[in-house]
Amino acid sequence: MEGDTIHKGITFVNSPVDEISHLALDIGGTLIKLVYFSASREQIVDKTQTNSSRDSNGVSNGSKDRRLINGKLYFIKFETSKINECLDFISSKQLHYRGVQHCGFPISDKNIIKATGGGAFKFADLFKEKLGISLDKVDEMSSLVSGANFLLKAVPSEAFTYVNGQRNYAQIDNNDLYPYLLVNIGSGVSMIKVDGDGKFERVSGTSVGGGTFWGLGKLLTKCKSFDDLLEMSHQGNNRVIDMLVGDIYGGMDYLKIGLTSTAIASSFGKAVSEDKELEEYQPEDVARSLLRMISNNIGQIAYLNALRFGLKKIFFGGFFIRGHAYTMDTISVAVDFWSKGEAKAMFLRHEGFLGALGAFMNYQLVEEFPKSVRLMGEKNCDPHVEDLNDNGTIECCVQATS
Amino acid sequence: MEGDTIHKGITFVNSPVDEISHLALDIGGTLIKLVYFSASREQIVDKTQTNSSRDSNGVSNGSKDRRLINGKLYFIKFETSKINECLDFISSKQLHYRGVQHCGFPISDKNIIKATGGGAFKFADLFKEKLGISLDKVDEMSSLVSGANFLLKAVPSEAFTYVNGQRNYAQIDNNDLYPYLLVNIGSGVSMIKVDGDGKFERVSGTSVGGGTFWGLGKLLTKCKSFDDLLEMSHQGNNRVIDMLVGDIYGGMDYLKIGLTSTAIASSFGKAVSEDKELEEYQPEDVARSLLRMISNNIGQIAYLNALRFGLKKIFFGGFFIRGHAYTMDTISVAVDFWSKGEAKAMFLRHEGFLGALGAFMNYQLVEEFPKSVRLMGEKNCDPHVEDLNDNGTIECCVQATS
Repeated sequence: MEGDTIHKGITFVNSPVDEISHLALDIGGTLIKLVYFSASREQIVDKTQTNSSRDSNGVSNGSKDRRLINGKLYFIKFETSKINECLDFISSKQLHYRGVQHCGFPISDKNIIKATGGGAFKFADLFKEKLGISLDKVDEMSSLVSGANFLLKAVPSEAFTYVNGQRNYAQIDNNDLYPYLLVNIGSGVSMIKVDGDGKFERVSGTSVGGGTFWGLGKLLTKCKSFDDLLEMSHQGNNRVIDMLVGDIYGGMDYLKIGLTSTAIASSFGKAVSEDKELEEYQPEDVARSLLRMISNNIGQIAYLNALRFGLKKIFFGGFFIRGHAYTMDTISVAVDFWSKGEAKAMFLRHEGFLGALGAFMNYQLVEEFPKSVRLMGEKNCDPHVEDLNDNGTIECCVQATS
Repeated sequence: MEGDTIHKGITFVNSPVDEISHLALDIGGTLIKLVYFSASREQIVDKTQTNSSRDSNGVSNGSKDRRLINGKLYFIKFETSKINECLDFISSKQLHYRGVQHCGFPISDKNIIKATGGGAFKFADLFKEKLGISLDKVDEMSSLVSGANFLLKAVPSEAFTYVNGQRNYAQIDNNDLYPYLLVNIGSGVSMIKVDGDGKFERVSGTSVGGGTFWGLGKLLTKCKSFDDLLEMSHQGNNRVIDMLVGDIYGGMDYLKIGLTSTAIASSFGKAVSEDKELEEYQPEDVARSLLRMISNNIGQIAYLNALRFGLKKIFFGGFFIRGHAYTMDTISVAVDFWSKGEAKAMFLRHEGFLGALGAFMNYQLVEEFPKSVRLMGEKNCDPHVEDLNDNGTIECCVQATS
């Protein structure tokens, strides 16, 4: 991002304070995700729009008085354990002063910020005390679904499959999106059956998620960061520690039940019989086994839930994935293996920000500010086709009606 | 066991060599399980039996010439990595000389032993070379199913539920046993849909099993043995390392999706944000988190598979469980939680020996020895009502027909 500054390892996006409009937060167990909109171009007033049939997911309702403002959505994350860095960032950029007069937004004097995730409850007092912000809590599952629906409908090339190291971007038909299974891999994992806008049910989940990978990985490898652990896993060889079918069967397959000799029979199973201590294993190999165990497990449980409800599409999101090739490959292979090729795992480019985006979308529902912003999902608002593993932006239009 | 001797940590059952009849092996990735029959009382010749309607699972076929021999089935295990101890044991007790003349069994001169598990392939040459034994390989899944069917039909009080620390023994109706899901937790986990005698399909499994608990546990806690690790888990507190829903939500529940504040949101998730190294955690707490993660995961995947096929009964076997209260409790709670109380986990007293028992049952199918032993599943052959977490016996009758 051009013109950004870096402070304490955080990238500060260099946009003028007076253009900030809305900020939304997703405060999870491990990470805080921030989404905010910044107007970056002239206001466009468009009174000629007549199409009134668009859906509710951030698209026009045909109001005669609507104002379109071009700008960017910014995506930034912090570690929850370093929440003061997040507060400093918000304060330094005055992200909590909602609305920009010259763009046609009324300025709110209430400092109410949409927030989701457990931290919206846990840290409500801290935000009030330090920044005078009231967190308006948005349900976590609802936010994830709103964020995913928006991305899948409005952002071109958002979803992709990952097969044999290749991304294949999916063309999502907005009329054929539902139902689908949303698997959000944060610290833990939530699995949500999505049947439409605002129509969803959390049908399953697992405590074996990103926090498990990072937490166990930290204990086992002394890694310095999540990315450090991912990088190690990229270098490692899981066969050093995992017990393969061939290790049990003397190099043979057990094809009668569909297991090749290289299938993992028991994750970390080789460590039982080898007379080696933790320090004698390469941390890279440990990281690899761990990543494979967790990715495979999530893929399996996701598939079983998709099968249960007859869902053909499974979208994986959450910060665990980080666009990491081996993670996506393992999840893809797991879904392919268990479904015997009938289901495909799909991934989202903005995977980590579903909840924050969903909270952001929620501004349209606030009573005292009922006609404010709606994200425009139009094709002329193309996003940068790039990963959002770290800070990044989507160029887009915001609609203000009065 | 009265009169046993202990050698290199192994209990040697003190039964006279000349009474040995049949030996069967289940050689897994981590453990070798041995089952053998020893005649311990006078031979009973019973020519009056007329009931010919019993099933094929080890029960009378009404032959006029059948001989009943009272005796005991012995159950012993060894670590696969210490296979020489197993070979020494077999050799010292001459368990490989099949059949005992004075009991009416023909003595085989072939030294063919029924064996299942991957090690039946991997170690075939070793058995041949060291003991002159040919391993007659029996399919692993088939053996597990035969063993489970026999136990469930023939042994009173074999199956039980575990709720609130209480075992409740189930009365199994032999006419209403099928279908059921058999979950065998060895190094890895196999999930088998059982529809009848010899009618089954391995429908799922997971690499996160007993080998994972022991392997990861060994790396994390430096435990000396599986039992050591289990004992530690009994002492520990998983809340020290697991991230609970309340940790994320500031002590609150997230009841909208059915999660209380004490539910685990992310296994090992607290290790991410705490500035502690592995050595600063109590190994007991680590062991507890690990056991809970794995038990819960297996319970969840088992339930999803039971649901998929409409199976109401889920039996858990395999050496992972070891009659351990906390393991059974976690699996029971997981099945109860995910099924919303509609399914119950059931456990088997002879959990670890399903495969070996199944291989033993298979003797009746060997062509050159077609009318040999059948286990009697009659009520007058009551087993000791006790756990078989280590070596143990079932008193029973064996039928020889000629």
